[in-house]
Amino acid sequence: MADPLNPTPRTHQHGDFAREETRLAHRNHGVLLELLRHDLTPVGAHYLLTHFDVPWVPDAADWRLDIGGLVERPGSVSLAELQSRPYAEEIVTLECAGNGRALIEPRWQSQPWHDEAVGTAAWGGTLLAPLLEERGLGDGVVDVVFEGSDRGIDGGVEHAFARSLTLDQIRESGVLLAWSMNGHPLLPQHGFPLRVIVPGWFGMASVKWLSRITLIDTPFDGYQQRKTYVYRQDAADEGVPVRGLKVRALMVPPGIPDWYSRTRVALPEAQRLFGRAWSGHGVPIERVEVSADGEWHDATLAAPVGRFAWRAWHWDWQATPGPHELMCRATDANGRTQPIEPVWDTAGFGNNACQRVSVWVRDTAADT
Amino acid sequence: MADPLNPTPRTHQHGDFAREETRLAHRNHGVLLELLRHDLTPVGAHYLLTHFDVPWVPDAADWRLDIGGLVERPGSVSLAELQSRPYAEEIVTLECAGNGRALIEPRWQSQPWHDEAVGTAAWGGTLLAPLLEERGLGDGVVDVVFEGSDRGIDGGVEHAFARSLTLDQIRESGVLLAWSMNGHPLLPQHGFPLRVIVPGWFGMASVKWLSRITLIDTPFDGYQQRKTYVYRQDAADEGVPVRGLKVRALMVPPGIPDWYSRTRVALPEAQRLFGRAWSGHGVPIERVEVSADGEWHDATLAAPVGRFAWRAWHWDWQATPGPHELMCRATDANGRTQPIEPVWDTAGFGNNACQRVSVWVRDTAADT
Repeated sequence: MADPLNPTPRTHQHGDFAREETRLAHRNHGVLLELLRHDLTPVGAHYLLTHFDVPWVPDAADWRLDIGGLVERPGSVSLAELQSRPYAEEIVTLECAGNGRALIEPRWQSQPWHDEAVGTAAWGGTLLAPLLEERGLGDGVVDVVFEGSDRGIDGGVEHAFARSLTLDQIRESGVLLAWSMNGHPLLPQHGFPLRVIVPGWFGMASVKWLSRITLIDTPFDGYQQRKTYVYRQDAADEGVPVRGLKVRALMVPPGIPDWYSRTRVALPEAQRLFGRAWSGHGVPIERVEVSADGEWHDATLAAPVGRFAWRAWHWDWQATPGPHELMCRATDANGRTQPIEPVWDTAGFGNNACQRVSVWVRDTAADT
Repeated sequence: MADPLNPTPRTHQHGDFAREETRLAHRNHGVLLELLRHDLTPVGAHYLLTHFDVPWVPDAADWRLDIGGLVERPGSVSLAELQSRPYAEEIVTLECAGNGRALIEPRWQSQPWHDEAVGTAAWGGTLLAPLLEERGLGDGVVDVVFEGSDRGIDGGVEHAFARSLTLDQIRESGVLLAWSMNGHPLLPQHGFPLRVIVPGWFGMASVKWLSRITLIDTPFDGYQQRKTYVYRQDAADEGVPVRGLKVRALMVPPGIPDWYSRTRVALPEAQRLFGRAWSGHGVPIERVEVSADGEWHDATLAAPVGRFAWRAWHWDWQATPGPHELMCRATDANGRTQPIEPVWDTAGFGNNACQRVSVWVRDTAADT
């Protein structure tokens, strides 16, 4: 056993997956792609990434949120006090910044997401900006730090999971302190009793099990803000912070699956392909294209279900016998589109390369 | 792409994990071990194994269960009709028969569970045996076949997921047709709108998305009954069907985790170790032992929460600085106990070897 406080640095990996990667894949889960049919991902099927352990909170009545630092009236609030404030609800698509990591070659040793780290929920709570303003903002606030009660070690550094946003980012994104998901209290694994929701950003910003908010006059330099969740070409690169979701489309794989390979088997008939598409910071999706064997076609977009939520699309494919590869590609209102091949990032962040779905179309109808 | 209907046979694997195994690990998920603290696993954190796709059932009002074969009054029933029958609820621990597969060397290429494929829920529905009896049992019933609406391919064979039980097994286990989980309608991924719950058996018996019950006069020879879920020493072995849960204990890993390795870091002080233990067919747990570095100690058992549910236990460990290995071992009222090392099974079923938890105890309290 290696001492986690003096770890061997992780490296990049080719080919097969280490036991640690596979254990993480079991611990954290993605959405089942066929559940993309639901406007709101069924509770429990939403993607889930927990860096450390889910904290044990047997009674929310014992829980308090501390608000401190550069505010005129610091103090703590109970969940009941927060719930007496104006209620706000937003349908938000969240995605892990590491989604697609396992498709970058070589890949960084971490959570080996393929394309399943996404979900959409109606998050209910109260807006954060007015709550902070009512407390009296001090002078020179640079960052607002959100600390969860989940604690652990990464890269040899013990810390509670913590992230920061600026006051402008909080106002522009409509950041929520959320206590409900699809109309139910948060599940323990999704942040019970209270979490942050940052619409339009990758999931790392939406701190779960929120225990403390601190306003500070210097840029926050916590582990999860500076050491990771940064786009870097190599380890020496100062990098660019990971923030908004990247434009992406996913489809529900057609036909039926093979248990082990997940290759799809379909009949030689018309198939309505269905999927979802989204982008970051509330930028609308303007176009989705589908490729069958390399030829691109425009899909039909459904009406948006929310500014920060994914948009449904469909396209009718006339399946012919034999093997096929399907892809989909979204473009947003800022003209950003998905690459066909993964774009290099040393820790595997932000890989929004087009999903590829292998389908074997049978010659005739099933005989069983 | 290989044709799933003419597949290359799967094999055993040493060392690192294939991409297919890691994708399955993301798709299907285990319980987070720290959530073993909950008597009832929080909905959505219960282990989940879906062989094929979760069926799309937008409206339960359109759904019907067909009952046919050797009954005097075959026919179909709606969910509302089932829900007008006497209500029954049972707290049941379910576990995947492949739990522990990834710890057998070499391992079968399939869902690479380590030890997390378990969960406990209060399942609500109606007892199956009286429902069948009211329909009038025909002569010579050998098996009752349960077919789900999930369809796919395994081993080159297209089929709907289906399993069977005898009438005696249905009566003895108190088999339920269940429409609720912890007081809520079933989630899509847990079998909405209706599933079978077979208390005391491994999870494969509890068919999800139940669409048809057929009483037949021959032993059922479906793929999921005969080709898999059979204990075999090698491929030529006729084998023994997988049925009841095997005796097993799991602990909540103490201390805090390292993100990637999941090695635990704890302080040099008393640690209350907490866990759960269960066995099959309603056989009570009589003893749990904990080993710290090879020396075994009796844990304290809590009162059972149900005949078919896991039982809580705890033991106080005085942690001293340095690396440690913790294990736990359960024994049931039939005298069955867990092996220290995995017992060979060719497809990796029923590995109830003792859980091992690596803990690095610090010299002093954390300095951060």
